[in-house]
Amino acid sequence: MAPTDKNLSVVTTGKDDLLLEDREVPQPGPNEVQVAMQRVGICGSDVHFKKHGGIGEYMVKKPLILGHESSGTVSAVGPGVQNLKVGDRVAIEPGVPCRKCKLCKNGHYNLCPDSFVLSVPPDDGSLRRYHCHAADFCYKLPNHVSLDEGALMEPLSVAIHACRRAELTLGDKVLVLGAGPIGLVTLLTAKAMGASEIAITDILQERLDVAKKLGASSCFKIDPSLNPEEMAEKMHSVLGWRSDITLECSGVESSFHTGIYATEPGGVFQMIGHGNPIKSFPQFVANTREIDIRGTQRYANTYPIALSMIANKLVDVVPLITHRYPLEKSVEAFNTAETFADNAIKVMIHCDDSLTA
Amino acid sequence: MAPTDKNLSVVTTGKDDLLLEDREVPQPGPNEVQVAMQRVGICGSDVHFKKHGGIGEYMVKKPLILGHESSGTVSAVGPGVQNLKVGDRVAIEPGVPCRKCKLCKNGHYNLCPDSFVLSVPPDDGSLRRYHCHAADFCYKLPNHVSLDEGALMEPLSVAIHACRRAELTLGDKVLVLGAGPIGLVTLLTAKAMGASEIAITDILQERLDVAKKLGASSCFKIDPSLNPEEMAEKMHSVLGWRSDITLECSGVESSFHTGIYATEPGGVFQMIGHGNPIKSFPQFVANTREIDIRGTQRYANTYPIALSMIANKLVDVVPLITHRYPLEKSVEAFNTAETFADNAIKVMIHCDDSLTA
Amino acid sequence: MAPTDKNLSVVTTGKDDLLLEDREVPQPGPNEVQVAMQRVGICGSDVHFKKHGGIGEYMVKKPLILGHESSGTVSAVGPGVQNLKVGDRVAIEPGVPCRKCKLCKNGHYNLCPDSFVLSVPPDDGSLRRYHCHAADFCYKLPNHVSLDEGALMEPLSVAIHACRRAELTLGDKVLVLGAGPIGLVTLLTAKAMGASEIAITDILQERLDVAKKLGASSCFKIDPSLNPEEMAEKMHSVLGWRSDITLECSGVESSFHTGIYATEPGGVFQMIGHGNPIKSFPQFVANTREIDIRGTQRYANTYPIALSMIANKLVDVVPLITHRYPLEKSVEAFNTAETFADNAIKVMIHCDDSLTA
Amino acid sequence: MAPTDKNLSVVTTGKDDLLLEDREVPQPGPNEVQVAMQRVGICGSDVHFKKHGGIGEYMVKKPLILGHESSGTVSAVGPGVQNLKVGDRVAIEPGVPCRKCKLCKNGHYNLCPDSFVLSVPPDDGSLRRYHCHAADFCYKLPNHVSLDEGALMEPLSVAIHACRRAELTLGDKVLVLGAGPIGLVTLLTAKAMGASEIAITDILQERLDVAKKLGASSCFKIDPSLNPEEMAEKMHSVLGWRSDITLECSGVESSFHTGIYATEPGGVFQMIGHGNPIKSFPQFVANTREIDIRGTQRYANTYPIALSMIANKLVDVVPLITHRYPLEKSVEAFNTAETFADNAIKVMIHCDDSLTA
Repeated sequence: MAPTDKNLSVVTTGKDDLLLEDREVPQPGPNEVQVAMQRVGICGSDVHFKKHGGIGEYMVKKPLILGHESSGTVSAVGPGVQNLKVGDRVAIEPGVPCRKCKLCKNGHYNLCPDSFVLSVPPDDGSLRRYHCHAADFCYKLPNHVSLDEGALMEPLSVAIHACRRAELTLGDKVLVLGAGPIGLVTLLTAKAMGASEIAITDILQERLDVAKKLGASSCFKIDPSLNPEEMAEKMHSVLGWRSDITLECSGVESSFHTGIYATEPGGVFQMIGHGNPIKSFPQFVANTREIDIRGTQRYANTYPIALSMIANKLVDVVPLITHRYPLEKSVEAFNTAETFADNAIKVMIHCDDSLTA
Repeated sequence: MAPTDKNLSVVTTGKDDLLLEDREVPQPGPNEVQVAMQRVGICGSDVHFKKHGGIGEYMVKKPLILGHESSGTVSAVGPGVQNLKVGDRVAIEPGVPCRKCKLCKNGHYNLCPDSFVLSVPPDDGSLRRYHCHAADFCYKLPNHVSLDEGALMEPLSVAIHACRRAELTLGDKVLVLGAGPIGLVTLLTAKAMGASEIAITDILQERLDVAKKLGASSCFKIDPSLNPEEMAEKMHSVLGWRSDITLECSGVESSFHTGIYATEPGGVFQMIGHGNPIKSFPQFVANTREIDIRGTQRYANTYPIALSMIANKLVDVVPLITHRYPLEKSVEAFNTAETFADNAIKVMIHCDDSLTA
Repeated sequence: MAPTDKNLSVVTTGKDDLLLEDREVPQPGPNEVQVAMQRVGICGSDVHFKKHGGIGEYMVKKPLILGHESSGTVSAVGPGVQNLKVGDRVAIEPGVPCRKCKLCKNGHYNLCPDSFVLSVPPDDGSLRRYHCHAADFCYKLPNHVSLDEGALMEPLSVAIHACRRAELTLGDKVLVLGAGPIGLVTLLTAKAMGASEIAITDILQERLDVAKKLGASSCFKIDPSLNPEEMAEKMHSVLGWRSDITLECSGVESSFHTGIYATEPGGVFQMIGHGNPIKSFPQFVANTREIDIRGTQRYANTYPIALSMIANKLVDVVPLITHRYPLEKSVEAFNTAETFADNAIKVMIHCDDSLTA
Repeated sequence: MAPTDKNLSVVTTGKDDLLLEDREVPQPGPNEVQVAMQRVGICGSDVHFKKHGGIGEYMVKKPLILGHESSGTVSAVGPGVQNLKVGDRVAIEPGVPCRKCKLCKNGHYNLCPDSFVLSVPPDDGSLRRYHCHAADFCYKLPNHVSLDEGALMEPLSVAIHACRRAELTLGDKVLVLGAGPIGLVTLLTAKAMGASEIAITDILQERLDVAKKLGASSCFKIDPSLNPEEMAEKMHSVLGWRSDITLECSGVESSFHTGIYATEPGGVFQMIGHGNPIKSFPQFVANTREIDIRGTQRYANTYPIALSMIANKLVDVVPLITHRYPLEKSVEAFNTAETFADNAIKVMIHCDDSLTA
């Protein structure tokens, strides 16, 4: 580390810029730990905030530190912390809620309007050397779980939350729309929950090839010459089934149409991806088939499950990592993530010196 | 009855016509009863089939007998019937499913693709003198429950099914969008389930006045100068709450927007009304607030509940009846129902001679 | 108040004694309020701790201040409190959980192993002049809700939690076992949730008479000459139905047998009362009828509902109060509660000078 | 086959006897198929009916043909059958409900009081040459699914139903009590649903060894010197966790105690095994920890899932078969099943000539 590198942090103003700034090292308050950051994966939302300055109502109004798929080692402990000590390797759950509102108390802390969430404006992220976090939202990693896996517990949590909201269970026939990083980790999670068949769609054959390797039973390249109802009909005729659970990971409007037509009466259409904030959907079909359309806001109570899954080898998320960069080369890292260069899926940044040493 | 009036039936070809035709009297097959029809309420769907010839994928392709909100007296009993005898007064549940498919077996018989459903093309309805029906979908009325109440168990079933799908429960704050017959019976049902506050909207002040009398805690006349987000904000500022459960009974697209903006994070937006088969909705808001959007296809397993509610005075549906006509004057009856003339809510047709005698 | 009456408190050592002791007035810490107590209802558990020194694993090992059904007025506010100010009238939710454990985070804070709970050893209760409490577990009462109602939100919460765990809903046929204070408030709650018929049992006719007045549709005096299966059969033959939901409020073993025999296949047997910690039950019947046996540990997320029910007149709990005493006469008050003297149901203690003035 | 072997059937009078009788070959009625039986597994209940003449309220009052875990080939088709044709290989779901009662209509057809169920008195079983069955309760096996697998879909269905009733899901820590055939198939099912850790108990080390091979993460031999609370505590100290889901497959009363003590607050104790019809349980603990105790009556809507699991290799049940006998040697087969001779787990009887040829 350079002498001036106290707390090198990756910052955007939301105008398609990325700055490496040095900041003060934060000290842990009561019930907090200071974490020496080691792995931070780049999420689509990080790229979006950098490039477009906002997602929906979350706008970058002042310089924002990015990053929230992260792990590291506890480097200091604030007053009152009992579950962790210096030297513990931890995965960091990004959102820390108020703990007092109705939504926190009834188990939906992910919907708490007063939560702090890493890299969601105006809250800074963890793509830096040091970050302080509520100790009870840091999860100690067993020795045989890697820091990479710790960081990937974040996208895995998105998938777990979505599949649990969808009430996916044994024997379900599942359709995943979109084979990007979230689509792929959703595929892995659906498999671990007992889905008997999983079809997946994308516009890129390369992604479908990865999905096939990860266990998809059927892959469909979206055919732009077909309208959504025809696309759904084509899948139905190939598969012989409509999906019990459809997991929408693309955020694309046409995918909402295709997905609802492709879903079995009484099934679930689980929204995960964003995209255009106003979308149309085939409401008559959804209504008369009683297809539930459910939302996903991050996750709640998933980190213990994600850790348990990884620690017990129920899922292997590491193959999703295709590229690695040291923190100092974050600009290159974002460039790769943004352009999907070289078939990039998950780009991982090392905040420690494990790549630069 | 005129000598030629064997089985006077109200028929449409879907071209805004209504014919009174005489048909053969059907004889009950195994496990069926023949019912001498007495009360049939006119539903919005009856009007729609007559006027527009179809709803969504259900098209009037041959002359269709209308009517499905109905009650009468058992006039003959087919082989194998054990639960009913001649003379029993019954309410008729319109849909009779295949009993063999996956959806029938798992309790969602309303989604059965092979069901017979009164007055849904190509299946004829019960607005006639005699109709034969599966005996186990006819519910014997206790002495103190009227034939009017028996017929109204059908719209009440729509409301029960919707409120149960929405998991409406004690203390919920509820928003009902649309104060037509279904909106009003939904209001009554939500109250019976323990909703602590119920707001209702409509574009007609007359309907809101009825809703107020039936127990709505707040009424909002839709202000066409406000966009849906502003309308939702206005309601929020007046009420001091967002709804836990929003029940959409209008089928209007703008109401989908207003309703989703007006719903609490973690809440439910229950679709009941139809309308334009493709609709837009504020997907980003629905997704990030995890507002479930659920459909309603008729109802399943509601008639015993509807009967129990009415028999035990948990709900009083009779005030919804504003007009009555004998079967012979069905043209006038439909005209009233269609034009909402004279503040019509529910128009009831007497298929027996109780009005003409 | 006597000059030495700084914080008069009602204390037991668990050896069937009751002492009025003066204690220091506690000062509110961060996020706490100090409440000048005004109403505290006596619960069966208060009587039990006094008389028997323990319930299950909760043992009185040092002098314990009793009381947890309580309301009062905020008399001081600690740092950070934003939801309340001095002079606000509040109902106090007795349990304050750790907010950090898995159970707190997933909405089951009532099961938190590290919670503070009023009058459950070793935690002191609120039957005293002043008590300090977490501000977010104090609920501001609207002007038209009385302090009596505020205190009774506690037993009402027990009933709400039980009925929600039992998934009681519209049209359910309900059996309540035991017509003591909890049985009666459970009856009121079941009614408010849409139960169509409610039968209730007790060994005392006086209690059944009260239940009848509060809306029970059928009352059964337990006949000691019948075994549980016969008792269930007798009820079945009189009622014509088995219960969808059975709510066990007596804690008596024979009632577990009667209740399970009396429950419909697929129904719920909801445990509320305690009693002998080891009990027998007809397991073959429960298993083959798939009757779920569910537990109730206090309540979670019920106070907002209880307040909403009371504020909107969905339930009237005040008739349960049969006796009132000033704090100084707590010995007499407990004597009345313990002996059910004079058909006592709920004995309310006034901690302010409203009775003594 | 001998000339007199028209329809060789295995019959008991419930007095520890087993007779091979020749019966008429039944002809299929409307919507029925005649199945030439090929594989029938022996279930503990078959042994119990033979040996003790009854289970709970189901008593052998007249000679009973045994067997219900079965598969075969359609040999004739009754009027109206559309889903099957002669030559189709099928798995047979044993229970055929009335299709008309409330329980059938709401999806709980396994609780239908008027169902026909193979080998549950007074209904005969399928351990014979020919059996006629409702066509929609016969499931066509794909070519790559064996008749053995078809027969084992029955115990697999028990496990699926139990795990679904228990709402077992991803990341759950699971305890299975009893490592007999049902315990083992429950273990396999829990794994397929995403349980992260599965502990299993038994009194026989041989069974635990099988469980270990099938994927149990921890095995505990019941220590008769410990009381249930101590046994639970021992498991807790070894495992470091209490179970989210406990699956009771032994029917033994002490196992009910151990299992409830071993379950996490908010967890589920799923009853599967029978045994003494009246049992004691630690009610105070179950109540205050809110541990749900749920029953299992056979299964409903599981065969399509079981078939999908087997067809897609989510579970391998064939290793459970340890012994095979031709129909003619059913006495020897029952002897092996009854005495667990030679570490028998599942004894399979071939009703065709595949063993005798």
